Amino acid sequence: MKIITSPKEMKEFSAKSRAEGKKIALVPTMGALHDGHLSLVDKARSLADVVVVSIFVNPTQFGPNEDYDKYPRQLDADAQKCTEHSADVIFAPSPQDIYAPDASTFVNEVQISQNLCGKSRPKHFRGVTTVVTILFNIVKPDFGVFGEKDAQQVSIIERMVRDLFMDVKIVRSPIVREANGLALSSRNKYMTQLEHDGATRIRRSLLEGKALVDGGCTNIDRIKALVINSVTDAKTRVIYVDVVDAKTSLPVSELDVGNCRICIAVWYGQTRLIDNIII
Amino acid sequence: MKIITSPKEMKEFSAKSRAEGKKIALVPTMGALHDGHLSLVDKARSLADVVVVSIFVNPTQFGPNEDYDKYPRQLDADAQKCTEHSADVIFAPSPQDIYAPDASTFVNEVQISQNLCGKSRPKHFRGVTTVVTILFNIVKPDFGVFGEKDAQQVSIIERMVRDLFMDVKIVRSPIVREANGLALSSRNKYMTQLEHDGATRIRRSLLEGKALVDGGCTNIDRIKALVINSVTDAKTRVIYVDVVDAKTSLPVSELDVGNCRICIAVWYGQTRLIDNIII
Repeated sequence: MKIITSPKEMKEFSAKSRAEGKKIALVPTMGALHDGHLSLVDKARSLADVVVVSIFVNPTQFGPNEDYDKYPRQLDADAQKCTEHSADVIFAPSPQDIYAPDASTFVNEVQISQNLCGKSRPKHFRGVTTVVTILFNIVKPDFGVFGEKDAQQVSIIERMVRDLFMDVKIVRSPIVREANGLALSSRNKYMTQLEHDGATRIRRSLLEGKALVDGGCTNIDRIKALVINSVTDAKTRVIYVDVVDAKTSLPVSELDVGNCRICIAVWYGQTRLIDNIII
Repeated sequence: MKIITSPKEMKEFSAKSRAEGKKIALVPTMGALHDGHLSLVDKARSLADVVVVSIFVNPTQFGPNEDYDKYPRQLDADAQKCTEHSADVIFAPSPQDIYAPDASTFVNEVQISQNLCGKSRPKHFRGVTTVVTILFNIVKPDFGVFGEKDAQQVSIIERMVRDLFMDVKIVRSPIVREANGLALSSRNKYMTQLEHDGATRIRRSLLEGKALVDGGCTNIDRIKALVINSVTDAKTRVIYVDVVDAKTSLPVSELDVGNCRICIAVWYGQTRLIDNIII
């Protein structure tokens, strides 16, 4: 497996691959790879001839008081895992490779990104759409593979690709969980094992919400109230619980059973965690 | 010459051309083609195997009280001119082809676009960068050819291409003028012949500014004051006169002779006109 840090070299590698008629799949990550990421790599492997995993802790998607500095960085371990999962290339540029000192161009989705995480992380999605555009323009993948834990993010990327006529097919891959139900996240590293176990209440609250719907309830306020009550304890501060369209992540006023999603974000102690479930 | 209206068909045409090893040059226009545009077509012809002229009056770059509705549209005459200048394709989509009803993604340059025309046309450049991104993603040109009358626009496009790692070379082409010195613009059609003659004071004021610099003056305030005084008359309202870096269109505090540009925008009667000159 090859590790490329230079955007120019990455462009050349991709151009060569495309000239040979090969299809490219990109898995954009911020590294600290866990089994969730690796399921995306496997998905990419099943789709394309060349699998590129980008590892880039993107400064522009972190707010000023967020965890950019302490975000886990472990390229050697990541490379080992990518090798085991038959990736072809890790693209790991530095922030200086990606952003000129006077960079001033952003890609901005202004509808879907207003809700859910967009409310509490105001420039987060602008950073995401901008860096994903840059990665797409450098790697020029046929497929971009994204995990559904970040459901709103995938919806925004899909909207961006449609609106700007980008030549890439966005592929969604399901959430991967710890045995106890906690959704995998690089930020789980911030927690002790005891906290991991405690944070399973997030998943349980979503399952309770789903059970309510499965039992025939279609009242969105009741569903949200149950999830909020269920998740809340001394360590858990709810950022939001919302019911949205499963595909677009836009708010819904009526429940269309099977095509909606409960999305949740909480502070569990010092760690910001998100999860979601189709209802 | 081929006229294509469907983005899908345009993408297929470009993909086929590229697969045949041909280079593509795109001249993005809003139609109502004049000799300025045609000089861009000639430039494109000299650069590439395939010349695409896009004709699209882009609604998102007009403000709510601007001239979107009355902007001249004359596809038959434009096609005739493109044929005479050996273009290969006119790409003329409808607004509905380019913008979904719920389109919500914009490309936004936030530094250069704050000055000059950006001050009086607040969302104009956001519309320009967004539609140019879309056109680039559909046509996938090797070269994008832009006229220097819209100097700030070219600077913004160059910045966007750099920041987002777009694979297109931006080529600048010089201003084309009427015999009397008035810079060609599709908006000149709004004026009578008498007004055309009167509007030559814009060009004359720039030449006076340049003469001042050629005579040794490097005081930016004096240069601006002379141009403003020179251009002003009963029919002319100055929107701005500014001295900027010739390449980036960013404000300069000291005159670097030969590498700066006087930019001017005026209302001449009911018509908004811009022009510029290197100093």
